[in-house]
Amino acid sequence: MRDFSIDHSALALNTASLGHNLDGHGAGWEPERIIDACAARGFGSIVFWRREIGTRAIAIGERARAAGLSVAGLCRTPFLVGTQAIDKAMVLDEAKASIDMAAGLGAAVLTIVVGGVHPGTKGTAESLKIVADRVAALAPYAAERNVKLALEPLNPVYAGNRSCLTTMRDAVDICDAVDAPNLGIAVDVYHVWWDNDLDTQLQRAGKHRIFGYHLCDWLADTSDVLLDRGMMGDGVADLKALRKSVEGAGYAGPCEVEIFSANTWWKRDPGEVLDVMVDRFRTVC
Amino acid sequence: MRDFSIDHSALALNTASLGHNLDGHGAGWEPERIIDACAARGFGSIVFWRREIGTRAIAIGERARAAGLSVAGLCRTPFLVGTQAIDKAMVLDEAKASIDMAAGLGAAVLTIVVGGVHPGTKGTAESLKIVADRVAALAPYAAERNVKLALEPLNPVYAGNRSCLTTMRDAVDICDAVDAPNLGIAVDVYHVWWDNDLDTQLQRAGKHRIFGYHLCDWLADTSDVLLDRGMMGDGVADLKALRKSVEGAGYAGPCEVEIFSANTWWKRDPGEVLDVMVDRFRTVC
Repeated sequence: MRDFSIDHSALALNTASLGHNLDGHGAGWEPERIIDACAARGFGSIVFWRREIGTRAIAIGERARAAGLSVAGLCRTPFLVGTQAIDKAMVLDEAKASIDMAAGLGAAVLTIVVGGVHPGTKGTAESLKIVADRVAALAPYAAERNVKLALEPLNPVYAGNRSCLTTMRDAVDICDAVDAPNLGIAVDVYHVWWDNDLDTQLQRAGKHRIFGYHLCDWLADTSDVLLDRGMMGDGVADLKALRKSVEGAGYAGPCEVEIFSANTWWKRDPGEVLDVMVDRFRTVC
Repeated sequence: MRDFSIDHSALALNTASLGHNLDGHGAGWEPERIIDACAARGFGSIVFWRREIGTRAIAIGERARAAGLSVAGLCRTPFLVGTQAIDKAMVLDEAKASIDMAAGLGAAVLTIVVGGVHPGTKGTAESLKIVADRVAALAPYAAERNVKLALEPLNPVYAGNRSCLTTMRDAVDICDAVDAPNLGIAVDVYHVWWDNDLDTQLQRAGKHRIFGYHLCDWLADTSDVLLDRGMMGDGVADLKALRKSVEGAGYAGPCEVEIFSANTWWKRDPGEVLDVMVDRFRTVC
């Protein structure tokens, strides 16, 4: 395993951790200010959300690289299935727009959150087949633009309306079925920390299909399943064991801190939050 | 698969579905009234909670059988691990008291909800080893009293503080490790509906280790992960496929309706709720 205590250049910020500057959350920092704050603290890369980019993808990407940061990723495609994704042509068009944005930004990876159970079906299996079909339609378009697509399984609590994809096992199954060189998976501690089958599935995925590792912690007595994620070290996820599995399967890329935390971290000064991240990354991850 | 449209004698009520008569929920029906209401509607069995039984286990069990119902189960042991279960001797004593109550009631099965991540550990794997150790200590005591112990995996959203046991895979692993003839698993739709590995794990468990099948539905846009369960047919779980897996693995026992629903079903008249259960059981389960 890499030794982060002496080198935190693998640390990446997912800008969601600073509150998105939406809905009254966050300190109102523009992408440029966030880039500079990360660069000053030795972060190696950054991950943006589409809402922050607007029409400025190329400029923001260049600005990040000029500051010494790589753009590790962009969040995210629209839902590919579920009640918001009934019209296949419309979904694919919007997904292609997100691929275009990732390409403009120079983002290495575009994350896919697949959406919930598709109308007219029950359970998750049928929806996952539709996901595979739609991902297969998008992968070549993304490949032409040098964008990798990362399927991210979410915690099963979201299976109804956000992600019928809940396990790494199902994600690797889709990768196998679609079999595109730029399709892989993203591993998010929040979503998979409980899964004792994870190590086996990451071995199945292999180093060429693990496109991201997202850090936070699961608070034992979490008060909200969307906006109460913990800072690394404050929860019950076994962060060392999870990284051992991810790196054991060959992953050596960025470790992206993604903490949705309306009542704790989003209320703090962004600079302080970034300082805490660096400290925790070097000590408990 | 059994045909419930012509015979609903497999239908069991878990009394939680009527609101427990606690915290302002429920219509205040005593166990005797619930027993009579179930018997009148052709339910085959009933499952109680310890809080409803008090010191009247023997009398309530006899009353249920006199009305033509079997007592399919009792909910539940105390947590075996987690912050509320640090003192092993105390935990085992309280668990044995719950076994005694199940024996007095003549309940076929005592459900085990294992508790969250144990203090001093991270992740779920270490906690599950402690669960296995404590279950192994309880199984002979239960066997002497003719009580089966059913490990119930809960939805991973509860892994921090209610159940570090989140998958049927982990549950069957514990059954294999402990290897007691009266130790098995309970399958609850709410907790496992998203798991595409379920069928494989139920085959592993086999007919002699599946001790219960719990019905409800997962509402796609659920508003609360504890008290907003859906009535069968109102959600996105594939109930037919789940029962096919359970029965395909050899299970032919009661199907127990367990719906925690503070804002919908607990506000309705218990008699009406039971009528709806019968109808849904015969049509969509």
